[in-house]
Amino acid sequence: MAENSWDRLAGQNVVAGFVDTCLRGAAQVFFQNNALSGFVILAGVFWGGYAGGHPMVAWGATLGVAVATAMAHLLGAENGALRQGLFGFNGVLVGAALPTFLASHPALWAYVIVGAAVSTVVTLAIANVVKTWLVPGSTAPFVLTAWLLLLAAYSFANVPIAAMGPPALPSPTSAPTSANFAAIATLGTLARNVSQVYLVDNIVTGLLFVVAIALSSWRCALFAVLGSVVSVIVAAGFGARPGAIDAGLFGFSAVLTTMAVGAVFNKPSFRVTVYAILAAVFTVIVQAALDTAMAPLGIPTLTFPYVLTMWLFLLPKADLVPLPHHLAVPNGVLAKD
Amino acid sequence: MAENSWDRLAGQNVVAGFVDTCLRGAAQVFFQNNALSGFVILAGVFWGGYAGGHPMVAWGATLGVAVATAMAHLLGAENGALRQGLFGFNGVLVGAALPTFLASHPALWAYVIVGAAVSTVVTLAIANVVKTWLVPGSTAPFVLTAWLLLLAAYSFANVPIAAMGPPALPSPTSAPTSANFAAIATLGTLARNVSQVYLVDNIVTGLLFVVAIALSSWRCALFAVLGSVVSVIVAAGFGARPGAIDAGLFGFSAVLTTMAVGAVFNKPSFRVTVYAILAAVFTVIVQAALDTAMAPLGIPTLTFPYVLTMWLFLLPKADLVPLPHHLAVPNGVLAKD
Amino acid sequence: MAENSWDRLAGQNVVAGFVDTCLRGAAQVFFQNNALSGFVILAGVFWGGYAGGHPMVAWGATLGVAVATAMAHLLGAENGALRQGLFGFNGVLVGAALPTFLASHPALWAYVIVGAAVSTVVTLAIANVVKTWLVPGSTAPFVLTAWLLLLAAYSFANVPIAAMGPPALPSPTSAPTSANFAAIATLGTLARNVSQVYLVDNIVTGLLFVVAIALSSWRCALFAVLGSVVSVIVAAGFGARPGAIDAGLFGFSAVLTTMAVGAVFNKPSFRVTVYAILAAVFTVIVQAALDTAMAPLGIPTLTFPYVLTMWLFLLPKADLVPLPHHLAVPNGVLAKD
Repeated sequence: MAENSWDRLAGQNVVAGFVDTCLRGAAQVFFQNNALSGFVILAGVFWGGYAGGHPMVAWGATLGVAVATAMAHLLGAENGALRQGLFGFNGVLVGAALPTFLASHPALWAYVIVGAAVSTVVTLAIANVVKTWLVPGSTAPFVLTAWLLLLAAYSFANVPIAAMGPPALPSPTSAPTSANFAAIATLGTLARNVSQVYLVDNIVTGLLFVVAIALSSWRCALFAVLGSVVSVIVAAGFGARPGAIDAGLFGFSAVLTTMAVGAVFNKPSFRVTVYAILAAVFTVIVQAALDTAMAPLGIPTLTFPYVLTMWLFLLPKADLVPLPHHLAVPNGVLAKD
Repeated sequence: MAENSWDRLAGQNVVAGFVDTCLRGAAQVFFQNNALSGFVILAGVFWGGYAGGHPMVAWGATLGVAVATAMAHLLGAENGALRQGLFGFNGVLVGAALPTFLASHPALWAYVIVGAAVSTVVTLAIANVVKTWLVPGSTAPFVLTAWLLLLAAYSFANVPIAAMGPPALPSPTSAPTSANFAAIATLGTLARNVSQVYLVDNIVTGLLFVVAIALSSWRCALFAVLGSVVSVIVAAGFGARPGAIDAGLFGFSAVLTTMAVGAVFNKPSFRVTVYAILAAVFTVIVQAALDTAMAPLGIPTLTFPYVLTMWLFLLPKADLVPLPHHLAVPNGVLAKD
Repeated sequence: MAENSWDRLAGQNVVAGFVDTCLRGAAQVFFQNNALSGFVILAGVFWGGYAGGHPMVAWGATLGVAVATAMAHLLGAENGALRQGLFGFNGVLVGAALPTFLASHPALWAYVIVGAAVSTVVTLAIANVVKTWLVPGSTAPFVLTAWLLLLAAYSFANVPIAAMGPPALPSPTSAPTSANFAAIATLGTLARNVSQVYLVDNIVTGLLFVVAIALSSWRCALFAVLGSVVSVIVAAGFGARPGAIDAGLFGFSAVLTTMAVGAVFNKPSFRVTVYAILAAVFTVIVQAALDTAMAPLGIPTLTFPYVLTMWLFLLPKADLVPLPHHLAVPNGVLAKD
């Protein structure tokens, strides 16, 4: 088997092991601990980058995962998690996002390197916080790190902005649209919902991503498609801008939420599937909400609609009781008399 | 006794039990586990809704508490908390808030149903987080859920906005006003400070709410009135807009803070009362602050001024020591040399 | 020894003890538990205040630390921490910040008193939250309290604004600048990076602060200077506005981050120093980011760039493992089938 000999090589050779870790990092964006999946995903990113005339996005992603993974080694991160790519998937997204929104410039590469290195620190920081409630940090470190770097670009003359903003006050989307599902729910839209997870607007890339996920888990691939379909129906039903729906901008977070809630962090069942569909519906609302909220700042939502919804739907635990009034423990002095 | 026979019916009949739970949910907005209080409160909401020409607010509240309570049953929420209405009070507020700010439209009712259902998920999620520090989630789930739905309306052509925004940059309130307490601290203002907790601008509704609270707890009713009085004095003293003060918009959060800090979550005493008054004063400042901060987004503060202040004033616990420098535990590798 | 006789007096006399606690509070802004350092720091604040024509900043700081410390006594805060000044350093900054940005007016002093008293409540609240992950609250209570008070000023006609805003949408910093380090990295800039921690724009004040820190800890003073130098290089390299760099506005948070990460909360070593330098670099990016993000609200970042970066760089702990998928514990009912 090809993969087995690769696994053997990765276990023996330091360079091959590092490449293997980086590929798993690329796959962990979609929750897969699988180097082959990561290879197909990176191939999809390169295809989309060159086809769309933005090759820097692909090279940035590659640099990002390498720097983030190296930083995890330098910080002495736990080796098991490291080798599964769990310290690489935020760096690969930082590396893809920065060249998507910023102009090519020497400072951009300083940005990618600092951002990817810091994403590993932030991954450890957020993991420490959210483990308190047994939920994953997921792509929150990517979102926080990239938001800060993108906001800062407005204050830095040597970090020119290419494709975001300008900051503007929100205004209601004007003409009500009758939902034309047939025109929108094309294979292209459904695939771009998946490719946009890596900020790529490309049908082939999206299909390659689905194949990559299926190589590792059929169930996960099915839930990715399910999230893509649900998001188009909900976004069109509420009258979101058809152009944005078609570009996959209302679907990429829903794809991740549906996978996380329906197939990765819960044991699959009929009830869990219904719960995941409700989560997908709400993700579309959160996406629309954050599009509004980010407008005055001139930065994109990135995958935060997914992160927020995933947290809200994974935090409820068995036998939770809201705090009874008499259990609130008062301040010491206040309690004295 | 009328109530006893109702309690008996609610214990035996499934439908009556569900209605009882919903009524307690309506009362829990004011921290009361009492079906009769909830009935009077809902009556006040209907009075205010029809008197003000917004009956949809009352029907939305009713639908909201029913959906949220049903969702808690579906999710298998702990039965004791459920029967006290602790999974209904965020849904009833979501149901009241959405028709207050959004236009009547088929999508509005999809919004109320999804919002109320999700409010139960968010109630479980936030309860899980804040129980770590023994403070209640209170209306935070309502605020988060409704904010997201209202922000999203700007991006959805089929969810038309009726009465919020437009988004605008903050500008200083212009003419300094000499505080004319006599003109402002009328019975009407004091009552509207209470009715606005349910987003209703009506003196009768406010008085009914105070009666409803007193039916369950005299002490709580007194602290509600205390919070109302303090808020008017502070808001007028700092020169807040008289129209907003008169409409109760500077008081509703202070009413809740004063009840929570002074009568519900601390054992009442003279010291606790002074502490609650300081909390009420600060709530008015937080209300003014969040009015500014929300302006560019074009959404209302809802009860977040109460939630934030209540958390800040309940989080201090006995014998708390700020982290001594030498106790900060460093990163593993950093600690090695 | 002069200090020993002061220490003896402070241990015996209530008033001297209170003054001693307040002076230590002034020094704790720079992590020093040292009354003499606090005295020199307050002297620096008075020098800067009178030299710059803003004496109210110095008197506000003095009032702030006294009120915050008195409030800690009233709340029965743990005596050991109280006597180290750990309940005073947020109040002293609230007292310095409000007169910096608001006009002199009777309401300003009500603001300082309420703000300083509440800063002690918020200190206890935030300490309770962040002790969960063994990180310090540091100046977060100052930032939160002062942000709320400053935002509220826009809604209060009797709290006139003097020197912040107006709220504006962010726009990219226009002309790229070639980094002219020689012109910028003057002694003045380096000193103002330190003085701006107390919102003072004065070279003598900055030098007095460094002396005050060195009186207590040579190592801390060295890391303060290191942070100042790194911040100027990074800000100039990315093309931040030269005027803002020169005024110390890109350096004050980096000074605190470098001290906290490199000398206070980690055992000093070569690796820790490299880690602290990365933190200083990132603090400059966070400062630029928050300058953008706060622009529509018309309020300053205060020391939040330091607080956020310090938390991100102190939260990573030894042997942290991101949540494995199978450890996420599902909702009770969802888990049942």
